[in-house]
Amino acid sequence: MTKRLIPKETIGRLFSYLRALFCLVEKGVETVSSRELADACGLKPSTVRKDFSYFGEFGTRGVGYNVDQLVGAIRGILNLDTPTRAALVGVGNIGRALLAYGGFAEQGFHIALAFDNDPRKIGRTIKGVTVEDAADLEQRIKEEGIRLGIVAVEVSEAPGVARRMARAGVKALLSFAPCDLNMPDTVQIACVDLAMELARLVYHL
Amino acid sequence: MTKRLIPKETIGRLFSYLRALFCLVEKGVETVSSRELADACGLKPSTVRKDFSYFGEFGTRGVGYNVDQLVGAIRGILNLDTPTRAALVGVGNIGRALLAYGGFAEQGFHIALAFDNDPRKIGRTIKGVTVEDAADLEQRIKEEGIRLGIVAVEVSEAPGVARRMARAGVKALLSFAPCDLNMPDTVQIACVDLAMELARLVYHL
Repeated sequence: MTKRLIPKETIGRLFSYLRALFCLVEKGVETVSSRELADACGLKPSTVRKDFSYFGEFGTRGVGYNVDQLVGAIRGILNLDTPTRAALVGVGNIGRALLAYGGFAEQGFHIALAFDNDPRKIGRTIKGVTVEDAADLEQRIKEEGIRLGIVAVEVSEAPGVARRMARAGVKALLSFAPCDLNMPDTVQIACVDLAMELARLVYHL
Repeated sequence: MTKRLIPKETIGRLFSYLRALFCLVEKGVETVSSRELADACGLKPSTVRKDFSYFGEFGTRGVGYNVDQLVGAIRGILNLDTPTRAALVGVGNIGRALLAYGGFAEQGFHIALAFDNDPRKIGRTIKGVTVEDAADLEQRIKEEGIRLGIVAVEVSEAPGVARRMARAGVKALLSFAPCDLNMPDTVQIACVDLAMELARLVYHL
């Protein structure tokens, strides 16, 4: 079984399943039926069963799937079972929220490096991570071999920071800046644009 | 011209256009061609032209669209031209980042109320908003007639807070909690799950 054999659509849904399963773990639920999981994700039970058939036998007819086993299997397929180190640039409110957020650790992430260009922040330790000078980010990212970056700087600084991270070897970036970063196609980008999320909600009010 | 006549797909793309246009405004760009806008949004120029044909004549052949006029028109259609007041529950790192974020004001949002249950936070004023006791949130949201809510509390508290906001009249919620909130269909929900965004990026590494 390799992840190449699993259809892209299934992979996409695995993230939804995982999210729903984490909620069940939180509630102490031990088994889940394909119907319950389908309802939680807005899918048909047959889709859930078909998706899970790609990666083994977890279900027991009439009992359902073991939540822990399912989480483990999905995390394995999604490469989330080995902790991934990330480099954060920008230790403002959002950056600090990310450093403080416990949810990443559970899901196999770890902010290993944090950078800022504010001398008052450089040298401070937040949740075990010491803020380093942003001037050194290329060198430090290369030294640590980090490929996942988080950009939490001002909008005007974001494209420059993103380019520097890409040059240092970062292959995937989470950005909080609403502007396009004009990155090469070799770098995967996910944007979180809070103002736009709110704008969408307001439209539906 | 009413928004009822504009197809749902066009409305969805208006948010992308607006996002791209804000970036142009930031750069001081005054006119934009349908091709430039299409490229910025990953669409075909003919799609852009067709979408804009629903709401008037902004383009001049060979010159392009006036960026400011286009922003104004799209904001009008998306109901973003009158400031919408929001109530925030949870003044932790994420809550503070939202209070401090200037981007909302530009796009017609305003966090009018902020709540927390931590006595050390209640009464503090952040960017002009005084943190109130979360015990009073139903009463205050009703008094102010607020319909947009932001939930930035711990995961375990989020469903309860969301239900209380819905009972007070909130019709649209932005949530930072990764768990389903089990809200009635009458409340629109947008979730920002940062750990899942990072998980998606890691998978593509």
